[in-house]
Formats: sequence, structure tokens, C-alpha cells
Amino acid sequence: MNGNAAPLLHEIAALLDSLARTGEGGSVQLNGLPLLPGDYEALQEALGEGELSAELQALGLTQIRETALHGVWWVTHRNSAHEVMTESIEVTRCPALLQTPAEDVSEAAQRLRERLQAN
Amino acid sequence: MNGNAAPLLHEIAALLDSLARTGEGGSVQLNGLPLLPGDYEALQEALGEGELSAELQALGLTQIRETALHGVWWVTHRNSAHEVMTESIEVTRCPALLQTPAEDVSEAAQRLRERLQAN
Repeated sequence: MNGNAAPLLHEIAALLDSLARTGEGGSVQLNGLPLLPGDYEALQEALGEGELSAELQALGLTQIRETALHGVWWVTHRNSAHEVMTESIEVTRCPALLQTPAEDVSEAAQRLRERLQAN
Repeated sequence: MNGNAAPLLHEIAALLDSLARTGEGGSVQLNGLPLLPGDYEALQEALGEGELSAELQALGLTQIRETALHGVWWVTHRNSAHEVMTESIEVTRCPALLQTPAEDVSEAAQRLRERLQAN
């Protein structure tokens, strides 16, 4: 493996070790990195495709795909013209985008109560 | 709202209150419940559609969709013949299906290290 894919994969391995040991992972921003031709494909091939994929439709489309390496997620955010705005690899047991913020739960409880009282 | 949708929605509201207060939600299994004609649709209409949806491809397809009520997820598991096997509404900040099990993270770290050493 040439180019910058190998150093990135070593960084991901270190983040996985950290996640396994301490529960704390991290992320690598791909946009802005000096990726050489072929680096991107080498990275995709090394990480593989997992069984879980998610889409978040808010201010454009964000795709969140677990790779074949459990705990490693490929996150791509596109704008409304489908252009890639940010792309990152997140090392975590669950990306924050897949978790409901705590404050939204209270609001949802209140909304549902109001709806039930209106009926 | 007639039938069994209203009691189910009250149960979901109670689970949302619990999730907001204690961090502990719960789930309601839909299959096996005595849903009357129209109950299912009333439930779908009351919960609405959210911005996040996910698919897990393992032993058939599982769809995990956040409803318009944050913290309320509609989870449908189909077998390989696309028949609905289980269907539930989960009240949680993040369904367990969207979280990588801790033991899988150690295994992923090891697999990536081995792959990097082989190159």
C-alpha cells in the first residue's frame, strides 16, 4: 500500500485501540487531507463494507456507514446539490449523529402528551 | 382516535417521560398485540416520520427509523423472504442495533493491525 492510506490506517488502528481500552475513539477528517490518486480507494478497500448503514436527511443528506471493521464508520455529508461537503472516518461505538440529543427527548414527551390531550 | 392506538401512545409517552428523567426507556412489541384495523395507521400517523433511518443487513433486513418524535424509533425485522418477523417501537436515545458491541471493537483493532503488518 503506497501513498497516504497506510498512515491513515495506522491512525485508525490507534483510535480503535484507544476505543477498546478507554471507550474513547476519535475521528479523521478526509477532506483537506493530501490524498494521492488511489489513496481513497485503498482506504475503502482496507476498511470494507459493514452491515449497517444510515441516512440522515437534514441540511442535505448525511450517509453514515459502518465499515467491515466494527467501530469504524465512514460519514459523508452532502449539500442539497449532492456535492460532498465533509467526509470523515469516525472511530466510535456509535456516531453522535445516530443518537437523539437528551434535550430533544423531553420535548418529544411534551409534544406527544399535548397531542394525546387534544384527541 | 379509536381502538388500541391511544393506549399504545400513552405507553410511549410514559416511556419518553422515563427516558427524559432517568435515561431508561423501553420498547413495545407490535407483533402479538391485538391491533384493530386502522390502529397501525393511526400509530404511524401520530408518530410521524423523522430525519434518520438505518438499515442493518444481517439474517434478513432490519429497518430502524426514527419517528418525528425524537427518541422514538420504529424497528422492523424481515426474514430473507421479506416477511415481517418482528416489529417494535423502541424508546431510547439510540437503539442497541445501531451500537457496536464493545467486544467487537477489540477484534476490529486486532484485524486491522494484522492487515497492516501483512502489507
